[in-house]
Amino acid sequence: MRALYLGRFNPPHKGHIHAIEYIFNQPDIDELIILIGSGEKGYSTKNPFTGGERFEMLTALVRKSFDLKKIFISAIPDINRNTIWPANVVDLVPSFEVVFTNNPLVQQLFSKLVNKEVREIPLTNRSEYSGKKIREMMIKGKKWEENIPEEVVELIVKYQGIERIRSVSQSDEVEEIEHNKI
Amino acid sequence: MRALYLGRFNPPHKGHIHAIEYIFNQPDIDELIILIGSGEKGYSTKNPFTGGERFEMLTALVRKSFDLKKIFISAIPDINRNTIWPANVVDLVPSFEVVFTNNPLVQQLFSKLVNKEVREIPLTNRSEYSGKKIREMMIKGKKWEENIPEEVVELIVKYQGIERIRSVSQSDEVEEIEHNKI
Amino acid sequence: MRALYLGRFNPPHKGHIHAIEYIFNQPDIDELIILIGSGEKGYSTKNPFTGGERFEMLTALVRKSFDLKKIFISAIPDINRNTIWPANVVDLVPSFEVVFTNNPLVQQLFSKLVNKEVREIPLTNRSEYSGKKIREMMIKGKKWEENIPEEVVELIVKYQGIERIRSVSQSDEVEEIEHNKI
Amino acid sequence: MRALYLGRFNPPHKGHIHAIEYIFNQPDIDELIILIGSGEKGYSTKNPFTGGERFEMLTALVRKSFDLKKIFISAIPDINRNTIWPANVVDLVPSFEVVFTNNPLVQQLFSKLVNKEVREIPLTNRSEYSGKKIREMMIKGKKWEENIPEEVVELIVKYQGIERIRSVSQSDEVEEIEHNKI
Amino acid sequence: MRALYLGRFNPPHKGHIHAIEYIFNQPDIDELIILIGSGEKGYSTKNPFTGGERFEMLTALVRKSFDLKKIFISAIPDINRNTIWPANVVDLVPSFEVVFTNNPLVQQLFSKLVNKEVREIPLTNRSEYSGKKIREMMIKGKKWEENIPEEVVELIVKYQGIERIRSVSQSDEVEEIEHNKI
Amino acid sequence: MRALYLGRFNPPHKGHIHAIEYIFNQPDIDELIILIGSGEKGYSTKNPFTGGERFEMLTALVRKSFDLKKIFISAIPDINRNTIWPANVVDLVPSFEVVFTNNPLVQQLFSKLVNKEVREIPLTNRSEYSGKKIREMMIKGKKWEENIPEEVVELIVKYQGIERIRSVSQSDEVEEIEHNKI
Repeated sequence: MRALYLGRFNPPHKGHIHAIEYIFNQPDIDELIILIGSGEKGYSTKNPFTGGERFEMLTALVRKSFDLKKIFISAIPDINRNTIWPANVVDLVPSFEVVFTNNPLVQQLFSKLVNKEVREIPLTNRSEYSGKKIREMMIKGKKWEENIPEEVVELIVKYQGIERIRSVSQSDEVEEIEHNKI
Repeated sequence: MRALYLGRFNPPHKGHIHAIEYIFNQPDIDELIILIGSGEKGYSTKNPFTGGERFEMLTALVRKSFDLKKIFISAIPDINRNTIWPANVVDLVPSFEVVFTNNPLVQQLFSKLVNKEVREIPLTNRSEYSGKKIREMMIKGKKWEENIPEEVVELIVKYQGIERIRSVSQSDEVEEIEHNKI
Repeated sequence: MRALYLGRFNPPHKGHIHAIEYIFNQPDIDELIILIGSGEKGYSTKNPFTGGERFEMLTALVRKSFDLKKIFISAIPDINRNTIWPANVVDLVPSFEVVFTNNPLVQQLFSKLVNKEVREIPLTNRSEYSGKKIREMMIKGKKWEENIPEEVVELIVKYQGIERIRSVSQSDEVEEIEHNKI
Repeated sequence: MRALYLGRFNPPHKGHIHAIEYIFNQPDIDELIILIGSGEKGYSTKNPFTGGERFEMLTALVRKSFDLKKIFISAIPDINRNTIWPANVVDLVPSFEVVFTNNPLVQQLFSKLVNKEVREIPLTNRSEYSGKKIREMMIKGKKWEENIPEEVVELIVKYQGIERIRSVSQSDEVEEIEHNKI
Repeated sequence: MRALYLGRFNPPHKGHIHAIEYIFNQPDIDELIILIGSGEKGYSTKNPFTGGERFEMLTALVRKSFDLKKIFISAIPDINRNTIWPANVVDLVPSFEVVFTNNPLVQQLFSKLVNKEVREIPLTNRSEYSGKKIREMMIKGKKWEENIPEEVVELIVKYQGIERIRSVSQSDEVEEIEHNKI
Repeated sequence: MRALYLGRFNPPHKGHIHAIEYIFNQPDIDELIILIGSGEKGYSTKNPFTGGERFEMLTALVRKSFDLKKIFISAIPDINRNTIWPANVVDLVPSFEVVFTNNPLVQQLFSKLVNKEVREIPLTNRSEYSGKKIREMMIKGKKWEENIPEEVVELIVKYQGIERIRSVSQSDEVEEIEHNKI
């Protein structure tokens, strides 16, 4: 049976590895689609990396730790409308039967609107494996590399990710001065 | 003369009945378009019901309490742009001369941009007839049925609305954990 | 059981009356949603009337010939994407179980993508009850009123529909001259 | 009184100069907005130049031949919906009272939907001053420069316009071969 | 060399004059594109004036204080996507080599995504020349005219801007009452 | 060096295998992104399969014949605007240096707008390896399987592709009868 696993992966980290391992440990799951949502977002505090950069990072992680023959990866733009969003996902990835997600809204949308089975992923080390915490450490100049696989760290460095997230996070703080803002 | 009355109707309640009665009590109004705005939104704390569900609920209410021969009902998606929004409304509903609304922005948009007369609706029992308050009662497990007509209550139950709004309101509270969010 | 009947209704004509009668003659159908598609189009040879104008015309026809308590009417904008289009329809109208349509694409989309039963409407007098033929007669100055109910004819006249369709059909013929075209 | 003059200007040519002169010869017109429509289109046979390139070309023409203090120029993307299109134009340019256009559809849209006066421009030398003919001459390698002001010719050359239009016009002709098309 | 200077200009004020003067004082800059962003927004507290009104106001300011032969002005709608936004700007205005902006996000987007040189504008009198402060003074009934050029003040009065911003700012404060909001 | 290869792959066939082999035979190419364009289209004569179905088919083909560690596959929706389209592609896939395409428009867009090297793929057996011809054979009931890899044939059968394309191709032929079309 094929499963879908959704995230923003901004950036991919070791918590994602645990989640993928958990999914493949389910006896009835043999293939997995890992879908990068909000693929059209980038250069913001919440989504510092572009969909394409996250696609590259996540593939590097998967190539190292998982069997590529069982996995599909893609990055797609969001449709900013709850009630159509699951139909859009179904349209752009291979067919699947079950969605792994802990988000109550996503659970409602996939089960009520496109009739998919929904399952949860047990959380481990919640405080450490959090994209938000990692982004905060990047901005504050703290050690952000610890919970990120080496091959992803390299790509973050290659794309000057730390400089970028610090720069764009300043924009959020900039006061409204007419002649320097959009 | 035909009037337009706009709302999100999430869900329709007795305050809406009073408003419609008030409008038909105006001597110069003989037909009314009731337009469900934000029709494309649903499965959120602010808009738990879909445009189609609200269309069904509002029609049930109107069928019971008003003369169908004088009323048009429709649900349309928003255009998220103030300056074009009134032209979009004008385009998708029968022609009308006057808009009933208490919202200052909506008053400005219809009067300045598409040249419509704008009138206010006197508020009664403001604290009880509020969609926001009703949605809060639904989420908190309080008695939400009191100010909602019976035929609408039935549809909310049919569409498992209370389970839904509680579920999606949790998503708003969920902390950002990378592997369970979109 | 509730049915959906889709059309562009540009303009509504007597063929539509026969189709609605046929649907209500089905023993298992007790309510009908009549949905005006391409609601956002207007002022063109193929869609001379706006969604709102067609909404008004179709309601006039329904008020005269059918039981309003069994009917929902709405005009919505198209989503120009086959694979999402049925989810959009489902989202914006009351729930329904069966779709009446003779169009093979529409049949595929509703049955395969949103799991609806699909039924055909037997055609009668095909050559006379055709929106395309009626629009051609309007453009060519022929008698266009014959197959259109009186209450719809009145609205076409009120909105200066004949002048409009003749005018916009000229635009299709205008040669490309740089300084007078868009 | 301020007027609006619309075109695609792909590219600007001497016919446009005559049209602008004609408009300023009207005794009641003292300011003119020249609006480049389809600004978002480019790299096609019908619209070889981008909105920005046409903005630059048209400004070069205006700077040479007209009083800049009386003219506004802008390039905006189309809204592909007749019934909203005039509201979009009104929203993005300074206020105006009259529209100069020979296109019957544009005349209908501005007069019926946003209540503007509409006037025609007498055509002169129709066969020579045609954007379509000029583009055809560019594609076929004929003398295309004759009816284009020198300052515009220079920009077409600077942006390698002839190479571009020949290249993209080939795409229209390319047969559908799966592994080399989009 | 041609430069780009971006702002929302809601409304244009004397700080913008200083910025434009600063840019033209750069020895290598001889032409300037002044681009009004968020052109599609209007009738809100943050963007009270439409793109077209701001276009008219800014042109009045430029006509009085600068050489029109060196300046392009335009108002375009935003593309609400960071990673595509600079390509959209490049597409709709004449070609340019350098962008003047103090916003760190805008600096990142133009330098990393479309390879433009980015320069800052030294701020002067920051507390006085702020669109946000001016809009606050308008709402609160304080003297808002001081830092706005006379020709812009006239247009704000002509378009009843103070009445408008006070009205729409009330909408932000209106509590959620179902039967009077959208 | 990483390359990009674009197609609609409706459906994938043996010509695509030859193209991918050719690209990997280039000495300087070690990784390849295969991007399914028009991913949002489906259920039409030209694009019978959805983006997700084509994603699944193409992956089946690649898993059998190529080294997965060197390949990225994705299906993304089109942006229907030439001048922004390459920036959208760059945004949603891993970084790349060279594009393989025989389409003159695509060559212009990638080389002029996002500065990529462009290379051609020599065509072999053009008349047989054509998606258009294969789709025509499907519609006409001819032997369509010959030039399609076995693993793709299986998926076409699984998704009832032949029934689907025959059905939707009828819609293109259906005459305009008002009461059965959208």
